[in-house]
Amino acid sequence: MRIAVDAMGGDYAPEEVVKGTVQTARETKVELILVGQPEDLARELARYDTDGLAITIEPAEEVIAMDEDPVAGVRQKRRASIVVAARMVRDGRADAVATAGHSGAAYMAALLTWGTIKGVRRPTVGCPYFALQEKTFIFDAGASVNSKPEYLLQYAQLGSLYLERVVGIPNPTVALLSFGIEDNKGDRVVGEAFPLLAKSDLNFIGYIEGLGVAAGQANVIVCDGLVGNVAIKVSEGLSELLLDMLEHEVATRLGPEKLNSGFGQALASVRERANYELIGGMPVLGVNGVCVIGHGRSRARAVKHTILQAMHAVEVDLVGTIRAGWRDLAFND
Amino acid sequence: MRIAVDAMGGDYAPEEVVKGTVQTARETKVELILVGQPEDLARELARYDTDGLAITIEPAEEVIAMDEDPVAGVRQKRRASIVVAARMVRDGRADAVATAGHSGAAYMAALLTWGTIKGVRRPTVGCPYFALQEKTFIFDAGASVNSKPEYLLQYAQLGSLYLERVVGIPNPTVALLSFGIEDNKGDRVVGEAFPLLAKSDLNFIGYIEGLGVAAGQANVIVCDGLVGNVAIKVSEGLSELLLDMLEHEVATRLGPEKLNSGFGQALASVRERANYELIGGMPVLGVNGVCVIGHGRSRARAVKHTILQAMHAVEVDLVGTIRAGWRDLAFND
Repeated sequence: MRIAVDAMGGDYAPEEVVKGTVQTARETKVELILVGQPEDLARELARYDTDGLAITIEPAEEVIAMDEDPVAGVRQKRRASIVVAARMVRDGRADAVATAGHSGAAYMAALLTWGTIKGVRRPTVGCPYFALQEKTFIFDAGASVNSKPEYLLQYAQLGSLYLERVVGIPNPTVALLSFGIEDNKGDRVVGEAFPLLAKSDLNFIGYIEGLGVAAGQANVIVCDGLVGNVAIKVSEGLSELLLDMLEHEVATRLGPEKLNSGFGQALASVRERANYELIGGMPVLGVNGVCVIGHGRSRARAVKHTILQAMHAVEVDLVGTIRAGWRDLAFND
Repeated sequence: MRIAVDAMGGDYAPEEVVKGTVQTARETKVELILVGQPEDLARELARYDTDGLAITIEPAEEVIAMDEDPVAGVRQKRRASIVVAARMVRDGRADAVATAGHSGAAYMAALLTWGTIKGVRRPTVGCPYFALQEKTFIFDAGASVNSKPEYLLQYAQLGSLYLERVVGIPNPTVALLSFGIEDNKGDRVVGEAFPLLAKSDLNFIGYIEGLGVAAGQANVIVCDGLVGNVAIKVSEGLSELLLDMLEHEVATRLGPEKLNSGFGQALASVRERANYELIGGMPVLGVNGVCVIGHGRSRARAVKHTILQAMHAVEVDLVGTIRAGWRDLAFND
């Protein structure tokens, strides 16, 4: 198996991406291809003992910056690392892409280079609710915005297929995220998506509000990418804030040495469950290829988990699995 | 001062509303009018010693249920408690409304009974980020959805006026909530609101993502009501989840008696700051009257804080203050 790693993507690229790649190569047998500026990557690689590791470099001279438009970036920068990586998969030179870069650009590179599964109008990228609620995923988590009602239905379908056939959650429950739980508590788009979900074959349980996300009240939580991104990022920020506050309170009231006691371990254990780094990344669902998108803040550890997710997606034949499931859906209609 | 309390609104009405009203009457000199089913209210009141308390009952036989459409509910149910309460203010029989009921209905009752301040197309209801970030408020927090770009500008303007002239935060910073911080990270509506905010006189600092909410990176965080409601409710749910998890970890690792120690106090202190009950409620901004909307889950303590907020809004002449500020804005244009 060969994974093309977008070595220029992410807040700490290429340093942390190379570091995470080296760590992964040491722990697995997989071939890892660092895609990016060859000189930078050679310099970073030289900092590690890479003897016997299956790491190669694929030159890509351009980068799509965080403030660039994803569509224009992917179309115009043919030598951008994420575009070169996606093309390697298309040409059979790699089995999957792993990136911590511009998620919009990664999503568009996957979509434009590989195309969508027949009938999929809007691919989606989800995110589990950390290890806090491991069976609760939000679709879409930020890749797809300006959602129409029929797109929300597709996120629900793709998300359900992924949870049922890849994650292994039987008959996953599906809920629409809104500002209340009664049947009339939707805005225009969510309100029009409601009957589409209700009459689908999905295990639809109705509206859910923000409280239900943290409570894990559904497996597939469906919303526009802006809403999903806000829910995930607010949670990430709040976890840090609350746990820092608590650490401070304990240190002030009981003395800083208490943080090294059993209490410190309890705090560390909860902090770990709220840590996005363990998620690594999530695949774009509905395209003809594997592209796992990690967190832009990824450091080496998160990069490693992103690559591991990409490997896992190849192992379980993510694309074939979703494609077969999608065909079954169409057949049932 | 006389506050009309919507005694039939909220998950625990009328029991907890009456209880909270009695508590407030004991602690303040204000006249409180319980609006709702007279028999139910008389029965609940009889459970307390109300001797010398300035509590009266105003009959209102109908209730707008949580699953009712707010506009239809307010228009058709002329005897609904929230509508009767709003009319009392219009007729000079009360100075403000306090409610923990259907927020959409309360918002519409205020809007339709009192009208908006000249030039305000969309009133808004905000919410502070708990006592976790007391200087960070989200506008809109769930009352106003299907927002157009120009509505987002109005939430920003009304929110800024409220923070500057009522809360007392000088020159409050304003940010648009989106899925990234770069200038191109907006969906269609947020993207079109961006230049409106940028060319306004507001202290606009650009996009903010979910992480920035918990970090308190701006005073006025502007978004559609669905997004704001999700951000607030996810935070509320996550606070409970994390603190419960931690309590469980400590009890398991160190024994349940540890929860009564200094550590238990540290936990309680953080839990208190994440508690929505202390907020009480928030006023509808941009209408010609004071209506403070509390949390639907309000129990007596939260009801009390909602009434106190309504009293405070009357004391500081919220409506006159916002109206004068709005006129200044128009004058500057």
